[in-house]
Amino acid sequence: MREVAVIGIGDTKFGELWDLSFRDLGMQAGLLAVNDAKLAAEDIDALYVGNMSAGRFIEQEHVAALIADYSGLARDNIPATRIEAAGASGGLAFREGYLAVASGMHDIVVVGGAEKMTDVGDVFANEIQSSAADTQWEVVFGATFPALHAMIARRHMHEFGTTREQIAQVAVKNHKHGALNPKAQFQREIELSTVLKSPQVAEPLGVFDCAPLSDGAAAVVLCSMDKARSYTTKPVRIVASSQASDTLALHARSSITSFKSTQVAAREAFRLARKTPADVQLAEVHDNFTISEILAIEDLGFFPKGQGGKATMDGETMLGGKVAVNTSGGLKARGDPIGATGVAQIVEIVQQLRGEAGRRQVPDALLGLAHNVGGTGATAVVSLLEVA
Amino acid sequence: MREVAVIGIGDTKFGELWDLSFRDLGMQAGLLAVNDAKLAAEDIDALYVGNMSAGRFIEQEHVAALIADYSGLARDNIPATRIEAAGASGGLAFREGYLAVASGMHDIVVVGGAEKMTDVGDVFANEIQSSAADTQWEVVFGATFPALHAMIARRHMHEFGTTREQIAQVAVKNHKHGALNPKAQFQREIELSTVLKSPQVAEPLGVFDCAPLSDGAAAVVLCSMDKARSYTTKPVRIVASSQASDTLALHARSSITSFKSTQVAAREAFRLARKTPADVQLAEVHDNFTISEILAIEDLGFFPKGQGGKATMDGETMLGGKVAVNTSGGLKARGDPIGATGVAQIVEIVQQLRGEAGRRQVPDALLGLAHNVGGTGATAVVSLLEVA
Repeated sequence: MREVAVIGIGDTKFGELWDLSFRDLGMQAGLLAVNDAKLAAEDIDALYVGNMSAGRFIEQEHVAALIADYSGLARDNIPATRIEAAGASGGLAFREGYLAVASGMHDIVVVGGAEKMTDVGDVFANEIQSSAADTQWEVVFGATFPALHAMIARRHMHEFGTTREQIAQVAVKNHKHGALNPKAQFQREIELSTVLKSPQVAEPLGVFDCAPLSDGAAAVVLCSMDKARSYTTKPVRIVASSQASDTLALHARSSITSFKSTQVAAREAFRLARKTPADVQLAEVHDNFTISEILAIEDLGFFPKGQGGKATMDGETMLGGKVAVNTSGGLKARGDPIGATGVAQIVEIVQQLRGEAGRRQVPDALLGLAHNVGGTGATAVVSLLEVA
Repeated sequence: MREVAVIGIGDTKFGELWDLSFRDLGMQAGLLAVNDAKLAAEDIDALYVGNMSAGRFIEQEHVAALIADYSGLARDNIPATRIEAAGASGGLAFREGYLAVASGMHDIVVVGGAEKMTDVGDVFANEIQSSAADTQWEVVFGATFPALHAMIARRHMHEFGTTREQIAQVAVKNHKHGALNPKAQFQREIELSTVLKSPQVAEPLGVFDCAPLSDGAAAVVLCSMDKARSYTTKPVRIVASSQASDTLALHARSSITSFKSTQVAAREAFRLARKTPADVQLAEVHDNFTISEILAIEDLGFFPKGQGGKATMDGETMLGGKVAVNTSGGLKARGDPIGATGVAQIVEIVQQLRGEAGRRQVPDALLGLAHNVGGTGATAVVSLLEVA
């Protein structure tokens, strides 16, 4: 397989963007990325789009062709492919784009991710999100997506003595980071007490433990490494992109305080990259709920199992800590337009590795990790990127 | 890129399968394909699933992880990725699986396609199908999927003198083929007059000009060519798999009597394969409406533009004709469970190339073509397969 680089990035603001449609968002992010790579439209060989549920959110399937069309790429009749794996849709689209270049099939590929969630009511939006879980064996019995994560949180507290405060601290930290990100949905710091006192969604998780409903899009341009330097002076190498699955329903697993998919994908990515978690300076991890980040930083190997809460409370995942986690604000503060999220993680990592992250810059960042999860861990993808 | 072979195939019957759920269908097709390839579950490196709209048909997204789970593959935590491009979902999943093996990333990949359409009412099913078109600029103004194809038919009749009878003959031929396929939804021959007199859906197209709503699934196993013969004595080589896009809405195109996406994908596939349309003995083409097959056999290069209707009436696309088109019965008679269709096309081609197609066998078949379309041609994928 050929070496592949990221040579362009672009993203919209995340939030309740009522004046922008799905196609507006996808087009904007794509054009920003293409401009960043200094490409002409005719240089692009293929498009991949991560999207979870445009069929239900905006009653439109076939959205990769749609984005190609509205970006002017249909004129060149390039392949346009949508990838879906619930919350991991963007991360998987990134991996398919990577494969398309690594294989030698295409030289330059744009990977986009987009979701327009706020055109439907909150109750229906929650129903759509829950369709990432097993609708036949979980959702039909009343288990919503927050409820499933609440069970995970309870069990983690029971097994490892993780405290409510430690879980809440994830939100405090990610809001602190989000306050430094002009593209974040929430650019405001919050107190621990705000999280603890917030209205309960599914105990012990309150409103401030949950990522918001968001509109938004992100895009990256991938290129074979041998051509990358003709487009940019700062190519970022994709060292590995590994993906794993697990059962869709939580009840079929031997443990719900680890995501095996994350563990397997991370192990494989580190093996391919010949690196260890200790080599990573920054990571964007899938904090759709506060508890999810605690599982992630343990399952990725940054901290021993059961120590994620303590590490968070001790500031080890903060900017300036052992490993800077979710410098973008994460899903919690940067926002979570589902299909966009996995691609937005790559955008943040690349910005950091280029040294262009402004007030939230991680000094001397050389190796970054992106971790994107679908459902309650039925899908996970872990990508490692480094300064080329 | 490495050479890739199909080493296993499997498919369910297509039809109104009320006693089988989506997961049942996906699992059945997958197990048939895996057994056909004489694989053990632990040999499988990755799964790709083509599916258009499980989110709306059965309110379940994340269906690749679902199928991996119910097939027992989640135990090995293999990557599972869903691909969507409306009617071309299955064909694109096949192409992504092909890329995953060709790149060297994976050695053995299962590609499945599935759709469960009959759990919703017919009106809603039609609405879901129409979401393959541009919902903002076509569907909202009342253009359903059949209506868009009716416009294409009218224009083809106007430009080329194609007759209503020639268009109807596509259904007659495909029902004749379907009568020879024990997996087909309709295994009954029909008369030309039956098509002509059938209730109008969108003039000039009647009920018998439209592919049915179907449940079903299909699966194939892909393997690097160098290992293929350790699994099967009859590997089938994937010579090329090419994909192209066009505008989502018909009104943005200079012509609606050709699908440029089909033309571009076919030209590219033939170029990569160093073959011409004259080398092809059999083709599965996307006849979601009768008129679609006429466009397809012209755009693929089997007949000059405007001559597709006449060629059909002259029997040139029948079993025994110049090129046997849709020996499976096509979408019209074999059925069209949307996400399954593109994969079922590959299953039919492989059966034919192995010489295992029974009463519908094309003698001395060496090169077969599969042509899968999304929307009104906004996506097309053309794959060429040959006896290895």
